Amino acid sequence: MIYLDNNATTMPDPAVIEAMMPFWTEHYGNPSSLHLAGQAARHAVETARAEVARLVNAKPRDIVFTSGGTEANNLAILGMLDAHPTKRHLVATAVEHVAIHSLVERLAARGFRVSFVPVNPMGHLDLAAFERELSDDTALAAVMHVNNETGNIFPIAEVSRMAADRNVPLHIDAVQAAGKLPLDVTAHPVSTMAVSAHKIHGPKGTGALYVASKTRLRSQLVGGHQERDLRPGTENVAGIVGFGVAARLAQSLLDSEMKNVAALRDRLEFGVQKLVSGAVIIGDWNQRIANTTCIAFEKLEAEAILIGLSQRGVCASSGSACSSGALEPSHVLRAMNVPADLAKGAIRFSLSRFTTECEIDEAIGTIADVILKLASFARH
Amino acid sequence: MIYLDNNATTMPDPAVIEAMMPFWTEHYGNPSSLHLAGQAARHAVETARAEVARLVNAKPRDIVFTSGGTEANNLAILGMLDAHPTKRHLVATAVEHVAIHSLVERLAARGFRVSFVPVNPMGHLDLAAFERELSDDTALAAVMHVNNETGNIFPIAEVSRMAADRNVPLHIDAVQAAGKLPLDVTAHPVSTMAVSAHKIHGPKGTGALYVASKTRLRSQLVGGHQERDLRPGTENVAGIVGFGVAARLAQSLLDSEMKNVAALRDRLEFGVQKLVSGAVIIGDWNQRIANTTCIAFEKLEAEAILIGLSQRGVCASSGSACSSGALEPSHVLRAMNVPADLAKGAIRFSLSRFTTECEIDEAIGTIADVILKLASFARH
Repeated sequence: MIYLDNNATTMPDPAVIEAMMPFWTEHYGNPSSLHLAGQAARHAVETARAEVARLVNAKPRDIVFTSGGTEANNLAILGMLDAHPTKRHLVATAVEHVAIHSLVERLAARGFRVSFVPVNPMGHLDLAAFERELSDDTALAAVMHVNNETGNIFPIAEVSRMAADRNVPLHIDAVQAAGKLPLDVTAHPVSTMAVSAHKIHGPKGTGALYVASKTRLRSQLVGGHQERDLRPGTENVAGIVGFGVAARLAQSLLDSEMKNVAALRDRLEFGVQKLVSGAVIIGDWNQRIANTTCIAFEKLEAEAILIGLSQRGVCASSGSACSSGALEPSHVLRAMNVPADLAKGAIRFSLSRFTTECEIDEAIGTIADVILKLASFARH
Repeated sequence: MIYLDNNATTMPDPAVIEAMMPFWTEHYGNPSSLHLAGQAARHAVETARAEVARLVNAKPRDIVFTSGGTEANNLAILGMLDAHPTKRHLVATAVEHVAIHSLVERLAARGFRVSFVPVNPMGHLDLAAFERELSDDTALAAVMHVNNETGNIFPIAEVSRMAADRNVPLHIDAVQAAGKLPLDVTAHPVSTMAVSAHKIHGPKGTGALYVASKTRLRSQLVGGHQERDLRPGTENVAGIVGFGVAARLAQSLLDSEMKNVAALRDRLEFGVQKLVSGAVIIGDWNQRIANTTCIAFEKLEAEAILIGLSQRGVCASSGSACSSGALEPSHVLRAMNVPADLAKGAIRFSLSRFTTECEIDEAIGTIADVILKLASFARH
């Protein structure tokens, strides 16, 4: 199997699994328990909190563990809205991940006024429009750090400055940025920032929300006093420990890993474009993370391509895994005004630290085979 | 270490860990992905769903996986309230777990009328009062199956019949009942029922909500289409697989396990009462699950006892782990009208399938030592 769907989820690093093991077998106490078994678990959770904090250059006490990126994004947006109940306006980009896009749409149905800030065909955010939308009635703005489908990087420095100038709380969905870009909440202050373990070779079922100390946020789940009353429920100790190790690895390997991954991604793009005429790279080549490419194959259907690839052992995706099964082009490609003929055949390939040159060379051949066969069927 | 705090959390069964392993190392795909890696994960999630469904005798499609018991309880209560927005009255027992107790209190602060149904000093629910409180304005009733502090079993058959007669949606918190009592949502129909993996030798970070097919429930998290749109976010595949195995084991071992555990629990109580005069068992001896005893030691402080026990390698607790650190007697013992002098020194010992006779005999000696030493300090 050649796994090129790392923006959907990643293989846990062996070091992550090894670190989690003792928290299944030996240190299985509840971190809220006063006794020794509980305190061993508590200590491990706090060590992991410091490691995740370093990933975004925050203080450990500003990290709240959640069950994943979706919950972190929900907690940020609903939690800040609850804390600013008089404000009725939201700003989000038109290309947010489905977790935020759907949430904002539900809030619109509940009576919030929502501004979706457009992007251009390269995927660049319309910064002037973003700034114009911020007003005294704006409860919060939500901007992704990196688009999950195209890998395009958003200008967090400018967005952060504009939100601060207007005193608008800013939430950053950094789920696809963590482990691929340096993150620094002191350089670019934000109110909240969401990250997820399973996108950085950690376990599924664990995420975190950075909450700046001055951020007003209300918990959404109600229960015990875990996570400073912001997120009740017995902590997923092993998952959190795994997240800590994954965060540490992601940070220490960042530079070398992204250099390798970029070279492999470029090799993949070059190889595919050489063999398949009319393969178009979507988004801005110069403003994207190293591991992602979105290649559109004119007049073909993404689903047929993905099934063909999967049968030949190559795993890729169209849009986010969370919207799989949908036959329409994603809201992201529509917002970018990608022509329908191209958007329908857009495939995302996303690499990781475990991707090898040999795999890429094999994948290029397989992709070309599958595409040329489908194109020949389509012509007949 | 002698671990007698299994109502706080349990040691994962070795079979659970073994079953989870391949879903970290090999089948790490995202279940929402169309490709083979995704479909292997999807298949495992659906197998586990069937196993968890059997634990409560439900259909697999009525099981929604969550990040744990707290989230399942929140989803049930907030989700049903959202689906019945015109009703403004809630009924709950006075001794619910803190996850539900705090949630109901927050809802009271938001303007809901809340009736807490009392219990008597034995911990028995006042069924007549429960029935009286159900009205046309009642949005839902929440009743725990088993009390986490005393192990007392609540009369779910009667409660279920009364709620059905009045057409009131009924939520059952079965977190402490699963694996200790047979559960059957066909015999005693309920609207929703929450269970948690880590209380039955499964992993922390996974729970489930049974949602009867006719139950109207609105998702609380918003995002992708996972879990039939009721609970978005990438599934914690390994955790869910572990939950499935834990559920299967809990069900197949139930009878023999509870027989053994009851004998050990009785041995513990008899041994402690023989050595420590004035040790009082709280709750109804004849209406409780097999693994739990709540023993009150007059005129002593629970925290001092727990620290003494922990130093000697015995793990126990006072009240729920979620409220650890609180110096006041729990709301459960207060609702039971346990005299303050007793309630302050109440310790919960909770056993599991891994507890041995040898451990119990050693624990009895340690408990007696610690109590007698503290009592002698108290006299001087």
